[in-house]
Amino acid sequence: MAVPKQNADEIFKEFKEHSISEFFRRNAQMLGYSGKVRSLTTIVHEYLTNSADACEEAEMLPDIRVEIKELGENKYSVKVSDNGPGIPSKIAGKAFATVLAGTKFHRYKQQRGQQGIGAAGCTLYSKITTGKSVHLISGTSREKYECDITIDIKTNKPLIENMSKIDKDIVGTEIYGEFGDVKYENSDHGVYEYIKRTALSNPHMSIVLVDPQGSESVFLRATNELPKKAREIKPHPLGITTNDLLESAHRSESRKLGAFLQESLSRVTSGKVNELKEILKEIDFDSEPRELTWDAAEKLVKVFKEIKWMAPEMDSMSEIGEKQIEIAIRNILNPEFVKVTERKPKVFRGGIPFVVEAGIAYGGNSGKSKEVSARQKESSAEGEEAQQYSEGNILRFANKVPLLFDASNCAITEAAKGIDWKRYGISNFEEEPISVLVNVSSVYVPYSGVGKQAISQEDEIIDEIKLAIQDCARALQRHISGIKNQNLRETRYKQIMRYVNQLSGDLSDITGTKKEEIEKKLKELVEERFRISEGEEEKGSEDEGVSAKASDEDSGEESA
Amino acid sequence: MAVPKQNADEIFKEFKEHSISEFFRRNAQMLGYSGKVRSLTTIVHEYLTNSADACEEAEMLPDIRVEIKELGENKYSVKVSDNGPGIPSKIAGKAFATVLAGTKFHRYKQQRGQQGIGAAGCTLYSKITTGKSVHLISGTSREKYECDITIDIKTNKPLIENMSKIDKDIVGTEIYGEFGDVKYENSDHGVYEYIKRTALSNPHMSIVLVDPQGSESVFLRATNELPKKAREIKPHPLGITTNDLLESAHRSESRKLGAFLQESLSRVTSGKVNELKEILKEIDFDSEPRELTWDAAEKLVKVFKEIKWMAPEMDSMSEIGEKQIEIAIRNILNPEFVKVTERKPKVFRGGIPFVVEAGIAYGGNSGKSKEVSARQKESSAEGEEAQQYSEGNILRFANKVPLLFDASNCAITEAAKGIDWKRYGISNFEEEPISVLVNVSSVYVPYSGVGKQAISQEDEIIDEIKLAIQDCARALQRHISGIKNQNLRETRYKQIMRYVNQLSGDLSDITGTKKEEIEKKLKELVEERFRISEGEEEKGSEDEGVSAKASDEDSGEESA
Repeated sequence: MAVPKQNADEIFKEFKEHSISEFFRRNAQMLGYSGKVRSLTTIVHEYLTNSADACEEAEMLPDIRVEIKELGENKYSVKVSDNGPGIPSKIAGKAFATVLAGTKFHRYKQQRGQQGIGAAGCTLYSKITTGKSVHLISGTSREKYECDITIDIKTNKPLIENMSKIDKDIVGTEIYGEFGDVKYENSDHGVYEYIKRTALSNPHMSIVLVDPQGSESVFLRATNELPKKAREIKPHPLGITTNDLLESAHRSESRKLGAFLQESLSRVTSGKVNELKEILKEIDFDSEPRELTWDAAEKLVKVFKEIKWMAPEMDSMSEIGEKQIEIAIRNILNPEFVKVTERKPKVFRGGIPFVVEAGIAYGGNSGKSKEVSARQKESSAEGEEAQQYSEGNILRFANKVPLLFDASNCAITEAAKGIDWKRYGISNFEEEPISVLVNVSSVYVPYSGVGKQAISQEDEIIDEIKLAIQDCARALQRHISGIKNQNLRETRYKQIMRYVNQLSGDLSDITGTKKEEIEKKLKELVEERFRISEGEEEKGSEDEGVSAKASDEDSGEESA
Repeated sequence: MAVPKQNADEIFKEFKEHSISEFFRRNAQMLGYSGKVRSLTTIVHEYLTNSADACEEAEMLPDIRVEIKELGENKYSVKVSDNGPGIPSKIAGKAFATVLAGTKFHRYKQQRGQQGIGAAGCTLYSKITTGKSVHLISGTSREKYECDITIDIKTNKPLIENMSKIDKDIVGTEIYGEFGDVKYENSDHGVYEYIKRTALSNPHMSIVLVDPQGSESVFLRATNELPKKAREIKPHPLGITTNDLLESAHRSESRKLGAFLQESLSRVTSGKVNELKEILKEIDFDSEPRELTWDAAEKLVKVFKEIKWMAPEMDSMSEIGEKQIEIAIRNILNPEFVKVTERKPKVFRGGIPFVVEAGIAYGGNSGKSKEVSARQKESSAEGEEAQQYSEGNILRFANKVPLLFDASNCAITEAAKGIDWKRYGISNFEEEPISVLVNVSSVYVPYSGVGKQAISQEDEIIDEIKLAIQDCARALQRHISGIKNQNLRETRYKQIMRYVNQLSGDLSDITGTKKEEIEKKLKELVEERFRISEGEEEKGSEDEGVSAKASDEDSGEESA
């Protein structure tokens, strides 16, 4: 038997527990802090998200101001202020300096933030790149105060200093932080573009950006109507796992299992509980929920899937809206053609509702702009995140928040690339002047990473996005097919005619016939054959190409 | 002034702190638990990684046995046992049931695991999909015991039951768990392929896999030599951030700043400390390290970058080795051509050493196999992770661990796709029979996600991988250029000749000359022109194409 050179006690003597803050200190790239330009955008994104969610919660029209100043080489300050409800002083520390603390974590409700990582991540990044605290000023209906907040990385606890009351009549939240290893740049992944897209997908927001040169960009509120408020809903029986049900039962204050099921799940009526009782005679529906065992919960979940339920509540979602998406697309891309579609709400994982909106733009500035390509080259030379620019023609949103990074890992990209674009008259999706915009809204968006920049590639979500894009693509196909066929015909004709001249000379040498005569006859020959073959081709593509396959899809859609 | 409909106290009344376990319970996809096949591979990967690291630590040749049994629909048990040093009972609970606990977190040493998430993640996944504990049997040189371990998700603490001593003379660690929502499948992303690739990149391991059908696959040890032991090294002054230096100083037991720098950083001699003293007169190098301020640390880091240092220690890494990579490639792909290259160690982020090995295979089973495409279709129909199969011709490894998922997000994929393959005679990288294998070794691999399946796309790493692949690609280009030119010539010739017959008939009608005569002359004309143009083309590509650009790269390499 082999003898270990080091025994277990020696090997494990350094065994330690680490805080989540310590983990992200070492792996800040997982939170979106990789690359200087991206890191600055991540900071603005986190603060904006918090402001937008707080205002939405309080049912107010948000006025948000973002100020960025350059402090030194790759060092900037960021100040974000809003007119929202403010934040109570007793939880300010945790909100800004405890990773995984928040109100949003257990809620079954559509919100921009959902993890309780964002703002604390900013505080952490400020600390590890500048050693500084962030400064908070807040006014609620009960108190007005300011303080410095930083994070004790070892314990993931807040450290608050200089807490003091303010006499002025301030309202909302103003957060100020200083950050190193960041850079302001006017690129597709920069702060300006992020804010512009946020404003476009949230027309009820007013956002002012003051950039490091001091110039002010005002994104005016486009509507005074508050967006439909996203309701908090209960999970649907078809979307709950055994573990979810068990955890929920053990947390429950209901006294009986039957009542617990009605109170904690959507669509469970007393009639449905009776139906469950009939099937699951071995389970005591009068027992206490906190006594629920894994086995019983597993049986319940199994039977949930066997009986009929009303569909999940679908009014829990707040979309951007077809009209607003069209405005957004026209504003960003100035295209010659736009088509937007909103799908009906669907569910994934059995019972989590989500809804997809999509739009296609063609012409104008759609597709990869030359500007981007030029910048791509430049930043590649600078050794900075060149690979980030490769998805220029897919504009991604989740719960109305623009996603600017990790495109290749995202369900939206996967869906857009999985479409057989040739069928819709686009022979090269990457190169042609086409852009696709997609927004996925849900009470729970399954992000693929902690940085929340890509939607996990779940088949049900990908399929639904594809159907939305295809719907727009069919309209696009009708729009461009005429122009395109014309162009194609002309190009081919020119190509062939180029040879006729040269060939006529060669043939004249061989045959002794006059070059002019041969050229004339050859031209006639080509023109005639060209007309015949073009006619055939068009007819062919009409019959077996686009329309047949498109209707396949349509029928697939119905049965899905 | 707008008045919030809900005030801050109401909005934040549900404010709560959550444990890291709770976070991953909700977002298991971030740990690699998305898709049934992938989830099972993730479990085997985590346990194998732990066994391999423990044996390497104890300097033993690993004998590892993996047994997988089907327990029900999408329910399997996994048992992994090794002959390693075992694990002390007092830390067993934390090792298997506390996320972010481990020995590896702060070490500056090449290891497979580096986060302290893996095994606890398995325990968590077992609990949330089956409600069960995992069962541990372990024998160290001091004790033999067994117990059941599960995780208290709310607190991220272990719950241990049925701890009992064992009388038998057992050695090593055996872990047994039951898991739901998993599936055993013989695919490129399945357990068999994962173990096969692990065995190939770790020839000193012996691994036995017993699959759910009960059939046993034995991957024999290919060498009795232990791999070069990866040494724990100190960080290099050029690779340390202000925050790292500060945290390290505050943890330090050194009494003076000067001594601390020598003890905790690599390449800092007393001479270098004197040099620092000369430049930084305002810093007291006799002060206590725990008194170090952010400002002073920042100044130190700034000056580190201005003075000369010996290069980082490079013997800290343990590679697969050129010979073994060639064996691996021949075994997996049975190609007609293989070229492997090992680069010299380099650093990223200023001072973190890493080394890249790469190989190219051409012909045989290289490239996307038909089998994979067929399976892709099938699994797409089943609604399961079809998109995972899209990178069939890039085999990725980090610290000798095969990476099977998240290919699109990885520096290796980015590098391989960023190569101008046409220059090396490959006109379509996706479609041709070519495979690329890359292994990146480092004391700190910057993974892009918590699931450790992709390497963050940092430019220095991408560039180095590109250079390694290009080195192999030049040899490939020499190998295939002859065959290829020949094929190309033949194809073109055939294409043109096809027209000659048809054209001759048409021309005969026009000119009155005999068809046979025209055909003969046309053929001569084509053959002559064809020879001239082919000759020119070859010459052209020789002069301005491959060699010139290749030498550009070479010179770039030198100056990098």
